[in-house]
Amino acid sequence: MGKNQWIIKNGYFAVMNPEKPVIYGVMVIEDQRIQYVGEQLPSDLVLQEDMETFDGQGLLFLPGLINTHGHAAMSLLRGHGDDLALQVWLQEKMWPMEAKFTSNDVYWGTALSVIEMLKGGTTTFLDMYDHMDQVAKVTDESGIRAVLMRGAIGLCPEDVQRAKLAEAVQFAKDWHGKADGRITTMMSPHAPYTCPPAFIEKFVQAAHDLDLPMHTHMSETAAEVQQNVNDYGLRPVAHLEKLGMFERPTLLAHAVHLTDEEIETLARYQVSVSHNPGSNLKLASGVARVPDLLKAGVTVSLGTDGAASNNNLDMFEEMRLAALIHKGVSGDPTAVPALEALRLGTEYGAKSIGLQHTTGVLQAGMKADFVAINIEQPHFKPRTDLISHVIYSGAAQDVEHVWVDGKQLVKHRQCLTLDEEKIMREAQSCFDGLLAR
Amino acid sequence: MGKNQWIIKNGYFAVMNPEKPVIYGVMVIEDQRIQYVGEQLPSDLVLQEDMETFDGQGLLFLPGLINTHGHAAMSLLRGHGDDLALQVWLQEKMWPMEAKFTSNDVYWGTALSVIEMLKGGTTTFLDMYDHMDQVAKVTDESGIRAVLMRGAIGLCPEDVQRAKLAEAVQFAKDWHGKADGRITTMMSPHAPYTCPPAFIEKFVQAAHDLDLPMHTHMSETAAEVQQNVNDYGLRPVAHLEKLGMFERPTLLAHAVHLTDEEIETLARYQVSVSHNPGSNLKLASGVARVPDLLKAGVTVSLGTDGAASNNNLDMFEEMRLAALIHKGVSGDPTAVPALEALRLGTEYGAKSIGLQHTTGVLQAGMKADFVAINIEQPHFKPRTDLISHVIYSGAAQDVEHVWVDGKQLVKHRQCLTLDEEKIMREAQSCFDGLLAR
Repeated sequence: MGKNQWIIKNGYFAVMNPEKPVIYGVMVIEDQRIQYVGEQLPSDLVLQEDMETFDGQGLLFLPGLINTHGHAAMSLLRGHGDDLALQVWLQEKMWPMEAKFTSNDVYWGTALSVIEMLKGGTTTFLDMYDHMDQVAKVTDESGIRAVLMRGAIGLCPEDVQRAKLAEAVQFAKDWHGKADGRITTMMSPHAPYTCPPAFIEKFVQAAHDLDLPMHTHMSETAAEVQQNVNDYGLRPVAHLEKLGMFERPTLLAHAVHLTDEEIETLARYQVSVSHNPGSNLKLASGVARVPDLLKAGVTVSLGTDGAASNNNLDMFEEMRLAALIHKGVSGDPTAVPALEALRLGTEYGAKSIGLQHTTGVLQAGMKADFVAINIEQPHFKPRTDLISHVIYSGAAQDVEHVWVDGKQLVKHRQCLTLDEEKIMREAQSCFDGLLAR
Repeated sequence: MGKNQWIIKNGYFAVMNPEKPVIYGVMVIEDQRIQYVGEQLPSDLVLQEDMETFDGQGLLFLPGLINTHGHAAMSLLRGHGDDLALQVWLQEKMWPMEAKFTSNDVYWGTALSVIEMLKGGTTTFLDMYDHMDQVAKVTDESGIRAVLMRGAIGLCPEDVQRAKLAEAVQFAKDWHGKADGRITTMMSPHAPYTCPPAFIEKFVQAAHDLDLPMHTHMSETAAEVQQNVNDYGLRPVAHLEKLGMFERPTLLAHAVHLTDEEIETLARYQVSVSHNPGSNLKLASGVARVPDLLKAGVTVSLGTDGAASNNNLDMFEEMRLAALIHKGVSGDPTAVPALEALRLGTEYGAKSIGLQHTTGVLQAGMKADFVAINIEQPHFKPRTDLISHVIYSGAAQDVEHVWVDGKQLVKHRQCLTLDEEKIMREAQSCFDGLLAR
């Protein structure tokens, strides 16, 4: 196969340099990678003669957004029981339905989420769920990039625990590096409050054996922190530290309730945090200490969590919430400025899942994961600060085109690789089936 | 002129009855009003033979959204200085630019906001600004409904104060009931901290004379409350009560910092509050006590505030923020449920500006102000709870069609009454001119 080179001209590009975060210029893509991005083509860049040109007029190109925590198949339960107390929601609405999920449900639920994410500019997503072969299949078919893991709850007999661990290990081995390298894997015990310490230790050992990073829910609610103290005499950070988890590269979801000392520990071990502002607000979990985490040098990224607790998968909304709520709650209008919010959704997202050399920035050598948003709309006028416009005015629906690994997956708001109408129909039928069973 | 009657079939309609908030059925419009909405046509309803039918398939019809606080022309300053401390933002970015605003700037800035609002499903907006004849002109031309007022800052010599009051009175008289009744007016001293007590009293007297309601900013920041106490020995609610404002129907913008006693006073006088969650978060003003206000029986509605402090005019975002932040901050996941959030953006909006017999609900006899959103999209699937989907998943860009006063103003996301491209171009040129002057 010869090289496939093409060029985007006349576009704005969010290169995110602090001095000049947006440039007007050109980007050259060669096969799966960005070959060049800048204001003008350098004279020594060798270009193919018959190279295609893409007109970037009226478009702002961003690095693809990176959703670092979610349960894609849960979009099947979107709107099925909102505005309820957490335990009522979980015990009466979510768990009984999830217990009935088959491979087929996970396939169509994940496909529904993947079209929503792709159309909204998300080019990489993290998924922690069950029936993960189906999630990998959708990832492979759709062309999106994903970090996948079998999330294991350990509140079960030892033989079931063993089977879950074996399944998690097998999945991680089978799929790591697959789908042209678009899939990577992690080891993921569900949470300290749903996994006995010995079970978590086995996941840590497996992560060492496979040389994989780890992911878990932690300190989402004040109640679960208190339970950890009651059960183990330690707050969750010290508990996981003691179990050796932080010896592996680790990404923690939520981390809403943290002490100063816990923040220091996370920084010391270079543990990352997936901040899920929409889900944390909706479930009334609280407001994470994001400005303090960033100040301490912790890598913070953004996740939507499952669509049942969000209820969309719009990363623009998560970036905006991250920019807004920490200002409102701290009283500091300079907290989490727009460019930092964009980094949370892109560059820091990549770093928090170990893909900082692959994706997350528009830079030569990186995989060509990027999106074009239509800035010829009233809410992006006048053309003052395009990064501000993206964060404070933008939404998923402003995404016009999406590329992953150099391949166009969304064109004029239509998904090219998946059958949108069929997926919406099948997802509805899965939900109806779950209700009826 | 003969009656013009038409019917929408096969649509979902958000009638907002607590038992059944969404029905599947029909709506008949006659001239400017809703004649009937229900699951089936009643047999005694007389229909014209050649009546047009509109196919509502795949659409959810909502009452038009009502934006109860803003400064439309400020969209010219969108993104011009974000993430700054409040006083730096005001003194270095906003005020020097606003001081240069001409009638022409106000016209194009307002037009930019009106196309953004209409395309986002807002059918009525409140505007407090200067050069209000221009705002009235845009309202007239666009077909939108508006409550307009000359907002007056009283920190000026007495002759200037007198001129401003006279201008406010003249504008209120000239335009009240104009544009086929789509324009109503109010009297609006800017805020207790920018208006001497005697100046506010003159506005109260004028409101009595003209039989108009009142609107003002109040208690947006903790600092301005403290200043009120220092200057007048009273917190803002007692101060305005003493000046007689609450003898008139009154709508207060922001009201972030309130005591229990102040909430009781507002409830007793039936004073309404325009909650501006996006602006309050972005400017780090704090989080208003919305659940407490609602519990006390205060009518709460939603406003975007000016686009310079938001930065969009997306009322779906304000409804979602109202539903999310009060859960997250109070720790109660049942606070401000989805249907209540929709009411804040529609029914309560109308009530708070005295238009409860005109607009805000889909009900026979009301003016036909309504919007259709496209629910055949992944983020609205599966079809579980459409009100939840609107509040927790929806965005301005999901609005497909908009009608005000029975007339279609937006069709397939295109504004029919205003020239979108020209307005975007002229708004850019106004901003460039302001920078250059």
